[in-house]
Amino acid sequence: MTSKNDLSLDRVYQAAFALKDVARMTDLIYSPHFSGKNQVYFKTENLQVTGSFKLRGAYYKISTLSEKEKEAGIVACSAGNHAQGVSLAAERMGIKATICMPDGAPISKVEATKSYGAKVKLVKGTYDDAYTYAKKLCDEEHATFIHPFDDPDVIAGQGTIGLEILEQLENVDAIVVPIGGGGLIAGLAYAVKSLKPDIKIYGVQAREAASMADSLKYDEQITLLTVNTFADGIAVKHPGDLTFELIKEYVDEVFTVSEDEIAAAILALIEKQKIIAEGAGAVSVAAMMFDKIPLEGKNVVCLVSGGNIDVNILSRVITRGLVTSGRNSTLQIALEDKPGQLVDVSSIIAGCGANVIGVHYGHSDPNTAVTSCVLTLEIETRDFEQLGEIRKTLTEKGFKLV
Amino acid sequence: MTSKNDLSLDRVYQAAFALKDVARMTDLIYSPHFSGKNQVYFKTENLQVTGSFKLRGAYYKISTLSEKEKEAGIVACSAGNHAQGVSLAAERMGIKATICMPDGAPISKVEATKSYGAKVKLVKGTYDDAYTYAKKLCDEEHATFIHPFDDPDVIAGQGTIGLEILEQLENVDAIVVPIGGGGLIAGLAYAVKSLKPDIKIYGVQAREAASMADSLKYDEQITLLTVNTFADGIAVKHPGDLTFELIKEYVDEVFTVSEDEIAAAILALIEKQKIIAEGAGAVSVAAMMFDKIPLEGKNVVCLVSGGNIDVNILSRVITRGLVTSGRNSTLQIALEDKPGQLVDVSSIIAGCGANVIGVHYGHSDPNTAVTSCVLTLEIETRDFEQLGEIRKTLTEKGFKLV
Repeated sequence: MTSKNDLSLDRVYQAAFALKDVARMTDLIYSPHFSGKNQVYFKTENLQVTGSFKLRGAYYKISTLSEKEKEAGIVACSAGNHAQGVSLAAERMGIKATICMPDGAPISKVEATKSYGAKVKLVKGTYDDAYTYAKKLCDEEHATFIHPFDDPDVIAGQGTIGLEILEQLENVDAIVVPIGGGGLIAGLAYAVKSLKPDIKIYGVQAREAASMADSLKYDEQITLLTVNTFADGIAVKHPGDLTFELIKEYVDEVFTVSEDEIAAAILALIEKQKIIAEGAGAVSVAAMMFDKIPLEGKNVVCLVSGGNIDVNILSRVITRGLVTSGRNSTLQIALEDKPGQLVDVSSIIAGCGANVIGVHYGHSDPNTAVTSCVLTLEIETRDFEQLGEIRKTLTEKGFKLV
Repeated sequence: MTSKNDLSLDRVYQAAFALKDVARMTDLIYSPHFSGKNQVYFKTENLQVTGSFKLRGAYYKISTLSEKEKEAGIVACSAGNHAQGVSLAAERMGIKATICMPDGAPISKVEATKSYGAKVKLVKGTYDDAYTYAKKLCDEEHATFIHPFDDPDVIAGQGTIGLEILEQLENVDAIVVPIGGGGLIAGLAYAVKSLKPDIKIYGVQAREAASMADSLKYDEQITLLTVNTFADGIAVKHPGDLTFELIKEYVDEVFTVSEDEIAAAILALIEKQKIIAEGAGAVSVAAMMFDKIPLEGKNVVCLVSGGNIDVNILSRVITRGLVTSGRNSTLQIALEDKPGQLVDVSSIIAGCGANVIGVHYGHSDPNTAVTSCVLTLEIETRDFEQLGEIRKTLTEKGFKLV
């Protein structure tokens, strides 16, 4: 097993050199909207090639293999960003790659991984079954297994983001980083603290998958029985050995955020920054938005680590955000069963400037009289104030809101 | 009235200097996904401060005013990106600004404009009423009217994007640019053609608001009676005088795209590039995606001009995209009215790996027997293939699809 002593600043610089023509130096974008109590900059690894930072570690790791190892090929196990990073990295170096995925993996991830060039092997069962299969495949084919985080070269590759941030912004006070297995923050914290030890490094996990936060709390690596977050990129049950050691030494504190906070952060990034983050990529932003971290007056770099979110999930996140901010609402009105009622109701709503987008009539609610029915309307509103105005006007005109 | 001779390369360089500390040099991002037949780069003005390129022209124009003019203040008329650009520019220079908007303007645009510092005057009626009011206000207060596009300084400001593209990429063959009033493409084409006349400049309009395309066709400035596009940022009924002259001279060809093509481009930018474009900002991408322009083998820069899209509209664009790509589907099944039917149907759907997200029972369809009902299910699917599999399995098990 490797130890944290295998990591060195030299190795991170080696990685940066190796990545020169493969990874983009992603933009560091100052955000007037998110600034106020502090100055906020987004390091946009969601705009990295393959849609996440994972390409960095995967490419550098593979570049360090011997010619003999390269010839035997590589194997990885992932249904997410690591799969795409490994696939593209192997293709660029002309190396045979097999990515093992559980057979329930979303077709979009399978297709994206294949599109970069790797062979995808769908394994019946869970991630753990795919992992067991991948390890067996490595033994059979003498291939090299590319771990998604617990590997000093992978960690050094992710550390290059730290070098870029220091190059892109002077006077950084704090960097906020998502944590899954911990490879990203371990490399970034190591690189940054080695050069500028005064910069604070904060980690963020989804509350529903807080394996690293809990491990730090108990000072031993705990294993979660279940992880239940839509931030699938950081849904890791057990921290890495190496990453756990590095995080204990180089990360100042780790915070957690709720699913609703993550969703709100994704929506805010869409509306205010015009960028798409996946759940895992937005936990850092969520922690800052909801004041989890002491950052007042600081120059803060918030790392958005990836943008590979399923569009169905994204659609739900937006809808939920619209509802919680009063821009998509449902009205239920008990109506007498006589002609013209829908005309009156819809005139009132139109008069208030709102837009009806869904209508449903129901007769079977046991709480209404036999001669009446319940009209359910889905409406687009500007905000809660406009919704209140509509409710008030309907009530004044004699309609009974349920 | 000013003429096209008022524009000079010198003026564009002056603008670039003035904008140094205000506008971002937005990233030029190579897109492996959109490349293939050609090499595609996105110039991301949606990631510009205020969410669009409009800040450039507005700021430079205002910076050229005399001290006396600055003291008297400025007035603009816009419910969109120009409003936000003028507001921020005026605030940065400490100048009093009033933005006139029609009173039906979306609250999000009003709030965004106010947030940058300008006073917003809501005028009863249409854009034309707001425009008349704004001109009157200028006369009364001796304020300067900041035109959104038909002004040589505004055009010079937008032209700075051309300089940046030439700095960011060697060997550009073609640049594809959205057109509304024409200020953006006029400035960009002027700057680029003055330095590198071989680069092709192509314009793109929404088919439902093709005032510039039609004006070029008839070689006179036509006025559209109505514009009906969700790309509100380029819904302009009449081209500018100056922009029309410049476009005739410096732009190679103008193409149009449909509303569905614009929506598909927005969805593709979300999924593949992780960025948000508004309708106006995505017409250039739509023209390229749907092969409107002869670009084979070329190095193409596609300008994404803005990202200020209303989230309700965005939500609809995504939903529509999901439906047209087979990822959100509606199934209608005629059922006998007996217990256990929903169990059977939903088991089949779950067995095929799809997800039910909406259920509706109806008895009143005149085409079904009295003892039967129609079950309508909204389901999330991977693609049309999976949907076909579900339909096939349901039919095989004896269910009647409507």
